[in-house]
Amino acid sequence: MKKENKRGAVGTKLRVMSLGGLQEIGKNMTVFEYGDDIIVVDAGLGFPDDEMLGVDLVIPDISYLVKNAHKIRGILITHGHEDHIGAIPYVLQQINVPIYGTRLSLGIIEGKIDENPPPFEPELYTVEAGDVINLGVFKAEFVHVNHSIADACAISLKTPVGTVFHTGDFKLDVSPIDGKMMDLTRIGEIGKAGVTLLLCESTNAERPGFTASERTVGSSLERIFAQYTDRRLIITTFSSNIHRVQQIINTSYKHGRKVAVIGRSMINVIGAAAELGYMELPDGVLIDINDIKRYKPEELTLITTGSQGEPMSALYRIAFSEHDKVKISPRDVVVLSSSAIPGNEKLVGKIINALIKNGVKVVNDSTEDVHVSGHACREEIKLMMALLKPKYLMPIHGEYRHLYANKDIGEFMGIPSENIFVSELGKVLEIDRKGARFAGTETAGKVLIDGSGIGDIGSVVLRDRKHLSEDGLVVVVATIDMNDQIIVSGPDIVSRGFVYVKESEELMHRARDIAEKSLERAMSKRYGDRTYLKGVIKDDLAKFIYKETKRKPMILPVIMDI
Amino acid sequence: MKKENKRGAVGTKLRVMSLGGLQEIGKNMTVFEYGDDIIVVDAGLGFPDDEMLGVDLVIPDISYLVKNAHKIRGILITHGHEDHIGAIPYVLQQINVPIYGTRLSLGIIEGKIDENPPPFEPELYTVEAGDVINLGVFKAEFVHVNHSIADACAISLKTPVGTVFHTGDFKLDVSPIDGKMMDLTRIGEIGKAGVTLLLCESTNAERPGFTASERTVGSSLERIFAQYTDRRLIITTFSSNIHRVQQIINTSYKHGRKVAVIGRSMINVIGAAAELGYMELPDGVLIDINDIKRYKPEELTLITTGSQGEPMSALYRIAFSEHDKVKISPRDVVVLSSSAIPGNEKLVGKIINALIKNGVKVVNDSTEDVHVSGHACREEIKLMMALLKPKYLMPIHGEYRHLYANKDIGEFMGIPSENIFVSELGKVLEIDRKGARFAGTETAGKVLIDGSGIGDIGSVVLRDRKHLSEDGLVVVVATIDMNDQIIVSGPDIVSRGFVYVKESEELMHRARDIAEKSLERAMSKRYGDRTYLKGVIKDDLAKFIYKETKRKPMILPVIMDI
Repeated sequence: MKKENKRGAVGTKLRVMSLGGLQEIGKNMTVFEYGDDIIVVDAGLGFPDDEMLGVDLVIPDISYLVKNAHKIRGILITHGHEDHIGAIPYVLQQINVPIYGTRLSLGIIEGKIDENPPPFEPELYTVEAGDVINLGVFKAEFVHVNHSIADACAISLKTPVGTVFHTGDFKLDVSPIDGKMMDLTRIGEIGKAGVTLLLCESTNAERPGFTASERTVGSSLERIFAQYTDRRLIITTFSSNIHRVQQIINTSYKHGRKVAVIGRSMINVIGAAAELGYMELPDGVLIDINDIKRYKPEELTLITTGSQGEPMSALYRIAFSEHDKVKISPRDVVVLSSSAIPGNEKLVGKIINALIKNGVKVVNDSTEDVHVSGHACREEIKLMMALLKPKYLMPIHGEYRHLYANKDIGEFMGIPSENIFVSELGKVLEIDRKGARFAGTETAGKVLIDGSGIGDIGSVVLRDRKHLSEDGLVVVVATIDMNDQIIVSGPDIVSRGFVYVKESEELMHRARDIAEKSLERAMSKRYGDRTYLKGVIKDDLAKFIYKETKRKPMILPVIMDI
Repeated sequence: MKKENKRGAVGTKLRVMSLGGLQEIGKNMTVFEYGDDIIVVDAGLGFPDDEMLGVDLVIPDISYLVKNAHKIRGILITHGHEDHIGAIPYVLQQINVPIYGTRLSLGIIEGKIDENPPPFEPELYTVEAGDVINLGVFKAEFVHVNHSIADACAISLKTPVGTVFHTGDFKLDVSPIDGKMMDLTRIGEIGKAGVTLLLCESTNAERPGFTASERTVGSSLERIFAQYTDRRLIITTFSSNIHRVQQIINTSYKHGRKVAVIGRSMINVIGAAAELGYMELPDGVLIDINDIKRYKPEELTLITTGSQGEPMSALYRIAFSEHDKVKISPRDVVVLSSSAIPGNEKLVGKIINALIKNGVKVVNDSTEDVHVSGHACREEIKLMMALLKPKYLMPIHGEYRHLYANKDIGEFMGIPSENIFVSELGKVLEIDRKGARFAGTETAGKVLIDGSGIGDIGSVVLRDRKHLSEDGLVVVVATIDMNDQIIVSGPDIVSRGFVYVKESEELMHRARDIAEKSLERAMSKRYGDRTYLKGVIKDDLAKFIYKETKRKPMILPVIMDI
């Protein structure tokens, strides 16, 4: 069967498409298809935008993969961030495919699968940077890169139309905490051998220069620890940034401080990373949060979740004096070793204000170098292109502005404009010996997750939620006797989120009168037609309410027949 | 009467409080009271935060002013921005007090009052920088400052306990467009004569250095115009920034471009500013938007509203190809001569993405100096303090972080910590010959405006809107016969914003069955008690729905009796 495919592949085309991560931040997922073989890189989740009221998470629409499940040879994971692995449990609910990733990535994935297990034993295969695996016509090589999580890889894919290089998320760190610089040598070798297509991440493509080394944060931490020797330090960062956490622990240890960890995801990650050997915890440095009372403030560092201002996070509860174990005081210094993800600025600001109100000193990345990005800036992207010298470029991982900024870099580096493909979700880039071109579109999009429901929230539900959120609701209920053409009960009016009812009794009485007259009038015309009756009530009430309040609540008439 | 007040004032205290602008951005309003005299500085509006669903605007709670209306000698306006004048129409609905402001401020206020006239002819008095007006025991002097709107003033207030200086919003611009630098000389004289209390704005108190001159934007515009000689320029900025608009018009004129103005507020402001002599429009430079077809792209500059990404603004409609008169193309360059106000980053990003998607070149303040702030950075605040040498300092206009940053500057400049008062809304700072201290609190807070309703939206309504926005609504309606203890009709179930009903028919049927059994069981226990019946249905349905969907919609049972 495999052999046939390979033979059959002569003249066949490589098809490349993204099911997530184009024109958006997050839910990254790229698909490579050649004949009867498909491989997928990453399966991430995204977060709802402001219009997606009540939605918890967003995952890629994988209809195309479900339809072609028999072709899929595996999902390759570049690294263990949510926007690259978060959709795996949902994908495994629908298709059974093997997953390949480095040890840390799989460690994190296992935790997710345990919480939400598929109806079969999933096949997880651990790989190391440098490993090459055969997947149908494809040969995939994992190539070490730097990023804000350990054990991150790019993927170099040998295909019948040449090598395709997928950067994953990357930066160049010449002095990484784990000593493992991005494998420039191997990337250079791959480039020398010839690269047909580069899929390059675009997150920081608008930013000039190079991203700073993770070690610069270490220097800043050193300064902060040296300065505040008489205070407790509370430091928050992204829990997956193991090297950052390691640096905080090392600096604490060096300065004779004990470290207590707060927040479920932070505790989980440190536990898993230490167990897998990605972190070194000096003996006795970690203490239980319940034991912090035994130490003076200046003997303690607390590491917490909440760097994005999340309302239920440890730092939020600490800032608003809702945490039962950590009470803040002017003897605390809070370090936000992070940056606000766009859209979270106000939430983070709320925490900063609450802390300052309590006399806490707040240090963040606007005043000290306490955070560095994990993504390549323009010069690093140029370096990647200079080493790989790809014939074709497809910018990935970013909004339009980032993808186009990446395209600009590609042109600057000498890739002809017509060889750069800024794509869209589901849009297929087809490559054969004659060249590369867009060729059609497959199903792709956003699947919204709310509670345990996957994809049962659509535009109608969101539109209703939006409407309800803006002006609330007025329910009008009446029971009528269709035979005798009389109103048996009601109409009654109930409202929620519209006006403060106790102060608007007169308005509600008048609304009730309007509804009653409306119903009577409508019944006298077409008494048996409930749709008509409801329409008339709705129109009349909407007009009355708008005139009185300039508001447009949702009006929901319910007519019952006895 | 006045005389008596003045005599009675011996031994009386000056009371200073803010009804807006502390621990928040916007709705600025400060109150000064001495004996039987009150003066108010500014009456601004604020914008709703993310929790205030459906709220249009926020204004200060002026209960204290309404209660003491007879004492109020006037409202002094520092400048014509919404956050300083926007609440005036609402204030005038409740109290009739004279308003003093510079010509441009009053011009803008008149427009607002015309849209929303009070039940009397309002008293508006035009002043100029340098004017001194007597208001009861107070003597108020308007002092020219620079800001991002013309004709801005600080207010120096002579009171029986010494001079109080209110900076309004200010920056130092040594090369302002209108040639009028902040009146440092007069401020120095006031300082020399002695200042008891400085109320100093805090917006940029976290930012080091000096704010750049408005003229730096002119240089950037010059570069952009020189670079894109073959393209149409579309430039957006805050409509109230008259000097910015003037620079755009001047540069266009110099480069032989015609200017068309788009967006209601931009058209209004340019009209008013030109009429009042605050702008100079070279002959023939302005053309009607309907005439742009007659010119080549490179002969045109369009000035538009929408710098904050507002969804109905001109720029938004242009970016999303919804504008009937302006079609964008790769021959357009869009300049965002503005910065995103915190919370608006995503909205602005949406517009940028849409423009780039259409091949438009976008220039913003991250790549060029196309915007400068209107607020004093740390060095300018220091300069103000150095000139005024106040005994007491009260930071105003900012969130906690900004107020405390201002306090830090005060301490750096040598004001003793105990003489700096970081206050809260309604908190009274009392000053007499013995010193200054906090002394109690008056009513203050946020009044929410939704449609034509002022203050009828409270926490219950907002909580309900939040609940409805997250998981929608399930209405259960039943008609019962209390006498016969039977269900006459229903229960019927209607939902909105909960699930896509057509795909969840089975769930809704089962919910209906649950509701029916619930109602029967409850009736068999306490059939006459409608509150009890509703409670049982609500609990049972909530449990069922959460088990099935992990969602918590609002459940609204309506039981009717025939």
